[in-house]
Amino acid sequence: MTDCTESDGTSDAGPASADRRGFLKTAGLAGGLAGGLAGAVAGAGYGKFSLAPITPAAAAETMPAPKLSDKKWWPSKWGPEDQAGASNHITPAKVLEAAKWIKDGKIYKLGHDYESAMPLFGKRAFTLRIPGSPTGGPFGENRLVYHDEFVATEIGQVGTQFDGLGHIGIQMGAAGDKTEMRFYNGHAAADFSDAYGLKKLGVENCKPFFTRGHLVDLVPVKGRMMEAGEEISVSDLRAALQKQNMQESDIKPGDAIFFNTGWGALWKKNNDKFNSGEPGMGLELAQWVIEKDLCLTGGDTWAVEVVPNPDKTLAFAVHTTLQTKHGIYNHENLSFDGLIADKKYQFVYIFTPVPIVGATGSPGVPIGVT
Amino acid sequence: MTDCTESDGTSDAGPASADRRGFLKTAGLAGGLAGGLAGAVAGAGYGKFSLAPITPAAAAETMPAPKLSDKKWWPSKWGPEDQAGASNHITPAKVLEAAKWIKDGKIYKLGHDYESAMPLFGKRAFTLRIPGSPTGGPFGENRLVYHDEFVATEIGQVGTQFDGLGHIGIQMGAAGDKTEMRFYNGHAAADFSDAYGLKKLGVENCKPFFTRGHLVDLVPVKGRMMEAGEEISVSDLRAALQKQNMQESDIKPGDAIFFNTGWGALWKKNNDKFNSGEPGMGLELAQWVIEKDLCLTGGDTWAVEVVPNPDKTLAFAVHTTLQTKHGIYNHENLSFDGLIADKKYQFVYIFTPVPIVGATGSPGVPIGVT
Amino acid sequence: MTDCTESDGTSDAGPASADRRGFLKTAGLAGGLAGGLAGAVAGAGYGKFSLAPITPAAAAETMPAPKLSDKKWWPSKWGPEDQAGASNHITPAKVLEAAKWIKDGKIYKLGHDYESAMPLFGKRAFTLRIPGSPTGGPFGENRLVYHDEFVATEIGQVGTQFDGLGHIGIQMGAAGDKTEMRFYNGHAAADFSDAYGLKKLGVENCKPFFTRGHLVDLVPVKGRMMEAGEEISVSDLRAALQKQNMQESDIKPGDAIFFNTGWGALWKKNNDKFNSGEPGMGLELAQWVIEKDLCLTGGDTWAVEVVPNPDKTLAFAVHTTLQTKHGIYNHENLSFDGLIADKKYQFVYIFTPVPIVGATGSPGVPIGVT
Amino acid sequence: MTDCTESDGTSDAGPASADRRGFLKTAGLAGGLAGGLAGAVAGAGYGKFSLAPITPAAAAETMPAPKLSDKKWWPSKWGPEDQAGASNHITPAKVLEAAKWIKDGKIYKLGHDYESAMPLFGKRAFTLRIPGSPTGGPFGENRLVYHDEFVATEIGQVGTQFDGLGHIGIQMGAAGDKTEMRFYNGHAAADFSDAYGLKKLGVENCKPFFTRGHLVDLVPVKGRMMEAGEEISVSDLRAALQKQNMQESDIKPGDAIFFNTGWGALWKKNNDKFNSGEPGMGLELAQWVIEKDLCLTGGDTWAVEVVPNPDKTLAFAVHTTLQTKHGIYNHENLSFDGLIADKKYQFVYIFTPVPIVGATGSPGVPIGVT
Repeated sequence: MTDCTESDGTSDAGPASADRRGFLKTAGLAGGLAGGLAGAVAGAGYGKFSLAPITPAAAAETMPAPKLSDKKWWPSKWGPEDQAGASNHITPAKVLEAAKWIKDGKIYKLGHDYESAMPLFGKRAFTLRIPGSPTGGPFGENRLVYHDEFVATEIGQVGTQFDGLGHIGIQMGAAGDKTEMRFYNGHAAADFSDAYGLKKLGVENCKPFFTRGHLVDLVPVKGRMMEAGEEISVSDLRAALQKQNMQESDIKPGDAIFFNTGWGALWKKNNDKFNSGEPGMGLELAQWVIEKDLCLTGGDTWAVEVVPNPDKTLAFAVHTTLQTKHGIYNHENLSFDGLIADKKYQFVYIFTPVPIVGATGSPGVPIGVT
Repeated sequence: MTDCTESDGTSDAGPASADRRGFLKTAGLAGGLAGGLAGAVAGAGYGKFSLAPITPAAAAETMPAPKLSDKKWWPSKWGPEDQAGASNHITPAKVLEAAKWIKDGKIYKLGHDYESAMPLFGKRAFTLRIPGSPTGGPFGENRLVYHDEFVATEIGQVGTQFDGLGHIGIQMGAAGDKTEMRFYNGHAAADFSDAYGLKKLGVENCKPFFTRGHLVDLVPVKGRMMEAGEEISVSDLRAALQKQNMQESDIKPGDAIFFNTGWGALWKKNNDKFNSGEPGMGLELAQWVIEKDLCLTGGDTWAVEVVPNPDKTLAFAVHTTLQTKHGIYNHENLSFDGLIADKKYQFVYIFTPVPIVGATGSPGVPIGVT
Repeated sequence: MTDCTESDGTSDAGPASADRRGFLKTAGLAGGLAGGLAGAVAGAGYGKFSLAPITPAAAAETMPAPKLSDKKWWPSKWGPEDQAGASNHITPAKVLEAAKWIKDGKIYKLGHDYESAMPLFGKRAFTLRIPGSPTGGPFGENRLVYHDEFVATEIGQVGTQFDGLGHIGIQMGAAGDKTEMRFYNGHAAADFSDAYGLKKLGVENCKPFFTRGHLVDLVPVKGRMMEAGEEISVSDLRAALQKQNMQESDIKPGDAIFFNTGWGALWKKNNDKFNSGEPGMGLELAQWVIEKDLCLTGGDTWAVEVVPNPDKTLAFAVHTTLQTKHGIYNHENLSFDGLIADKKYQFVYIFTPVPIVGATGSPGVPIGVT
Repeated sequence: MTDCTESDGTSDAGPASADRRGFLKTAGLAGGLAGGLAGAVAGAGYGKFSLAPITPAAAAETMPAPKLSDKKWWPSKWGPEDQAGASNHITPAKVLEAAKWIKDGKIYKLGHDYESAMPLFGKRAFTLRIPGSPTGGPFGENRLVYHDEFVATEIGQVGTQFDGLGHIGIQMGAAGDKTEMRFYNGHAAADFSDAYGLKKLGVENCKPFFTRGHLVDLVPVKGRMMEAGEEISVSDLRAALQKQNMQESDIKPGDAIFFNTGWGALWKKNNDKFNSGEPGMGLELAQWVIEKDLCLTGGDTWAVEVVPNPDKTLAFAVHTTLQTKHGIYNHENLSFDGLIADKKYQFVYIFTPVPIVGATGSPGVPIGVT
């Protein structure tokens, strides 16, 4: 997920927040409270369906279990202490199996460059400065000079981004109760949240990926770019596989799957629309991913899941389902143009998250090797 | 290079700069001007041989060509417009050749985690903060919460770091003359330096690496950790290859070479000593790298070259030789512990720089696959 | 307060954290839970008396009211919606009364410059970079060039710093329950805490100060610099006033009071010791400040209160007493050298916090005018 | 000056740069080269009159002296080493003279709050994050919790901002020749420019202001908000003084003068227009300021001078005239609404720049006391 709210107080009356307000109106995410008051109540400030966080007043009421989460999902199948999730699939056997797909020797960069012109969701920022010019020198009789760069940014949650397992959780108890704010493998925010970096589930715990990647291109199936709020069904997936001459049975545990919706064409072309919502996976397809026991999903959108969800009471429910409950990773804002141009739908997906201790995600462009 | 100077003004009288002053004293890099005034003049503030930048007064004099750079080194063999340097070696043929080395399916992470405790050279900084706790939520009836992370840092020049081709240049004319501040392929700072990111030679121009990597472990050859200022000779290299049962002739154009000096054992154990200098390549070995036509050098130190250089008038002369003149990349602060434990000296080196537009380098841990 | 904890996990094993560990050992702040288990339990990791935050396990127990806070302290005397606290004392009458003290026309800067060499507590950071050189230009036929500066820092909580009313609160309910995490005037974190800036009690709510300032110099009373953990008693205050020929009765509601302990001499001279604790106000003197109905306290230390508190179960109890319960502001890391050299103990204290919306404090050097 | 260019490369094709391109088209600042090729040449990318920096090619030609700067302007009247400029006017006599104007005891805040919604020129950024929630605690049996804030921003050049003397200079020699990049008092960039903070002319050298301030309200004179590119003439100034019943002769050396153009009404209401240019001082009025020997100018605009200058070959020529040559300070993005509502045109202007070592400017809202 690239972001999921905007408080949109008066201090954001400036032009920069126009696209965010637009998003709320368009995307119509449900921020509804338990009890079903949803849209109607929140309508005023946040559009028909709102992203307004659950208020303290609501938190004071006795809350039932969150929707979709009536029972605990831990311990994980990799043990109660595991922090690596589905990256545990990447075993030597998996690497060897994947390596067999290297036949052309061709490398595809599957992401975008990082720059201030990229769409940034919500209040996230990306700034880069070159200190000095040059930063230092000349030194020595060989007269060396050098440049550095200084960035200030949500490094793991801007541009092409990889969600670590400390990014998305579910508030199981009362709003604000960190002992019941649960993440992958039941790890509670109370145990690992810290102002200076997560104490558990930091992205450094994720193992490098070197696995088989399958690309599902929905554009030929639909004959057009998919639209915001349009869900990819399992049937769409199957239609795409058939068009691409691929067997569903060839998608195996530990593989990675990627969706091209066409939405990525808006990147830097129409950032407002790009941020306003997106087509993507819904809960049906998420269930298919779980059953296939994959290690990672990815797409050409900022969340890889349908936004808004057709069920307006849900906010990024595929995130909470795949990432939080199953430890299945998500790679967002990818680009498959090269693969598609070459009609290469199967490749080795290689990516190592930048191991920033306590970070929630990682920058970096994965490669697809064929 | 991790850094190369410290102005060390009075505003740095605090404890944080102790290691830097120590470095200047120990490393003794020559900041001397052509003409040999070096150490004697600069001695007072910077140790016997100094890192003091060349002063405007000196710049006013007519300067001869920089040492080692009496003639221009451009255009590059990849054409006058090239910005990718030795990453051009990574062709499909190279990938296929390298992939043959994947036999075990084992992945080695060849770098360190990023954290505030890592040694940071000079005035570089690394700060990470988690905004809020959680950063947002709960949202929806599924009550999603999420964390982000915000970093402020010299992102491509801290920790395990990859030097891009906009990092190191040579002042060919008078100090401060950016039209003669030349980088790889002759690109002049006047044409690409910018406060908001390099306009040319940004790390986004570098192609992904997927090539054969050779590790040269000097520790068994020396019977100990190498010391600061100790140069790795070609003869040392050959002795190591022999111990490792490797053939020098098996190191081919476009391959990558890595040096383990033992110095990396100081990482987080004795950061002051780690930063105070280092063992590494000298000009002899750099020449060997050039003749071998490699794409990249790497090591367990912050510069991968000997610091201080035995020739005290030189400052990071291997950097200016390999990176600036030949476009050969450098990967610093690597860790080879896993490879060495398994006696794996040949592997596929895989790394994709994070394509931050206009950045001088990249974070990220490369992998070695066997 | 400049800071009050250090999690000190393994990722901080480097040299930078040495002073912090030292602090924990020296200062010995009690992190003990209600029930008196204090030091003994926490001892291992945090020194004899610890700063370890209250754990979730502890939070799960039924907790009695926090020490010193068995009843609620709101609404404030300035009304239930007030966010300006004791800056409400600064009325036109107060300004006119203060202005009478301007007799010499002399201005004293009462703080330190901001620079990387200043003592920074805990994990706070201060980094400044000049983007480019110059940042832009030359432009026009008049050939203008310009520089900017880029900082990344805890802007209101580094160096000479002014604590706003959103900085310090008291956890009244279970640990982590933001509905009972109470600040000035009873404002609850649940209502105003936000990843992008406090929604209430931001420092922009504070009114500019222009009031009578009284300096109390303890050094002549003690005949030496006061030491860490040494409390300034009301009797010490009276002895100092007498030495300075001042009347206690001349200190009136809305005035500001400042303490010189001598500790400030360590600034940039011995940052480790400076950060290791400090002399200052205790609860007795805080009570005197409350009865005097002052608007602000200040001092030459990073907290202006005794650290560690003689009662080892308390952590910065003067902060929670004066700031949280009474809205009385605190100005830290001041310098009174000029005033003392001129034997000027009464002056007009003038300071306007930088109104950063949602910030917890403010940078800026106040002036004393005589 | 808030900024003066936009390189506007392809990496800025996104929506964020729309206003910047608009500015270039509207404001039409001349970036013309000596030789008068100005607009015609640069037209394509930068609008009719351009802000394109002088190119290296142009720099290679022999350049005549910059327009308006055919002779050197140093040493300053405060001596060849002076770094404080016109703040030297603030003597005890001046303070006493100013203090006489304190009759009401009323304090006016003369600036805006700092927030992400404020107009930011060019590529400057303002980001604020609250680390954790809370940042730390609970600690002790008194259960203290606390918040910090972390900002990353061009701290002295965003929002209400005070220009220090290291901000604006003139390229006297060839473009890029730092030995002839001259600032106040002739200080050359080669001597003080540094990636980690200016070594001279940092804002910490400026003395606190406590002087008489005169507000000139142009809106009643014009009967409307002044427009971008509209210059305030000396005759306008006199008309305003007359309307306000003020004597020109009452404006004395060391006083400060402020201009209200009405443009400030666009703040956060229409940031694009606000940034697109502005009304303000031209060279005639600047000359009047010099003859009056004032210490500071200020206004409700981002540069306090007319943009674009009626002479299209000039870029912010009032800045280079007043700041660079005369050391007269400039306070930008002020707000005079309170003073105007109360018809208070004379007041004590009080401001102390935040003394960040090596910074080019300062944040902070000055106060006007009557």
